[in-house]
Amino acid sequence: MKEQSRLEQQLSFALEIDKEKNIFRQTHLSGHGRNENDAEHAWHMAVMAYLLREYSNEEVDIAKVMLMCLIHDIVEIDAGDTYAYDAEGLKTQKAREEAAKERIFSLLPPDQKAEFTALFDEFEAYETAEAKFAHSLDNLQPLLLNNSNEGGDWKEHGVSSATVYTRQSKTKLGSEKLYEVTDRIIQENIRKGNLKE
Amino acid sequence: MKEQSRLEQQLSFALEIDKEKNIFRQTHLSGHGRNENDAEHAWHMAVMAYLLREYSNEEVDIAKVMLMCLIHDIVEIDAGDTYAYDAEGLKTQKAREEAAKERIFSLLPPDQKAEFTALFDEFEAYETAEAKFAHSLDNLQPLLLNNSNEGGDWKEHGVSSATVYTRQSKTKLGSEKLYEVTDRIIQENIRKGNLKE
Repeated sequence: MKEQSRLEQQLSFALEIDKEKNIFRQTHLSGHGRNENDAEHAWHMAVMAYLLREYSNEEVDIAKVMLMCLIHDIVEIDAGDTYAYDAEGLKTQKAREEAAKERIFSLLPPDQKAEFTALFDEFEAYETAEAKFAHSLDNLQPLLLNNSNEGGDWKEHGVSSATVYTRQSKTKLGSEKLYEVTDRIIQENIRKGNLKE
Repeated sequence: MKEQSRLEQQLSFALEIDKEKNIFRQTHLSGHGRNENDAEHAWHMAVMAYLLREYSNEEVDIAKVMLMCLIHDIVEIDAGDTYAYDAEGLKTQKAREEAAKERIFSLLPPDQKAEFTALFDEFEAYETAEAKFAHSLDNLQPLLLNNSNEGGDWKEHGVSSATVYTRQSKTKLGSEKLYEVTDRIIQENIRKGNLKE
């Protein structure tokens, strides 16, 4: 087999990630729309990251945050989406995502494989300012949609406010200000009966 | 009516752009999938811009290119998608998009309205290195999908190679190297009978 050129490898990867548009999440689009897919979620997060960058607790390299948002769910092409409140799925999520990361990023030339892998790992590690702010958007974006739909996603899964707080409280690691929004939205949804106490 | 705070304005805009996920294009996803929507297209373009940035003819601010890719179709929430080969639609496209731009970006605080409007206008003007490279991706991304589907989108609309060349030749303003890929794909599709000569 003829070896692929650098550009051919890059284009193979570009075509492969098209599949992310077929990975559907539990979140529904505003206006009581259909389920959202990973590519749409990543796009929305990246625009919101730029738009709301002034609320990051720490100075961030916004290009890096945006890129992290754009690629953080590519592994789900193989590993599937694991719902934030699916305890069983969460147990095997790490192993499934590691295998996916290896297969999909190996389509790239070695230098870009290393770069994308490092960026994905940095996001997952939740330690740098960029990772923490990107995670704030990963949490806030579906909350915003779900709130616009009267908490439909929570009601469907019978999620309790304590469960939502456990996940969403990490938003404050990236942005105290966006966590205030989060807290306000959760409280409103408890009051309206959309979230079990 | 109580005036919206800066953050409320930003969140209104963030929720409004969710509608971009319902604007469908003529392009189909790889694997003979469904029609692609604008948010998915923008996500794919932005990742490809970063991935392929070494092929830009000129040095670019890649964060700016990515952001341009991410927001360039927001106006289509009101104006709709105008197919690249729809002569009638193209006549009114500019006016429809100007009105949409004014309405949607006016949801933002004034400084961000000005910033996003300027970025959109810069993309449309096709003059800066960033705009030219972003347009290369706007052209290449659907070509890559359509090629993976044996030119199904061209066959559906009976598009001729001359028409495709007119549009795609501008890719070379942003990237000579990516235009070589474009040219090779078009030639292959002519040879296979997917594109009328």
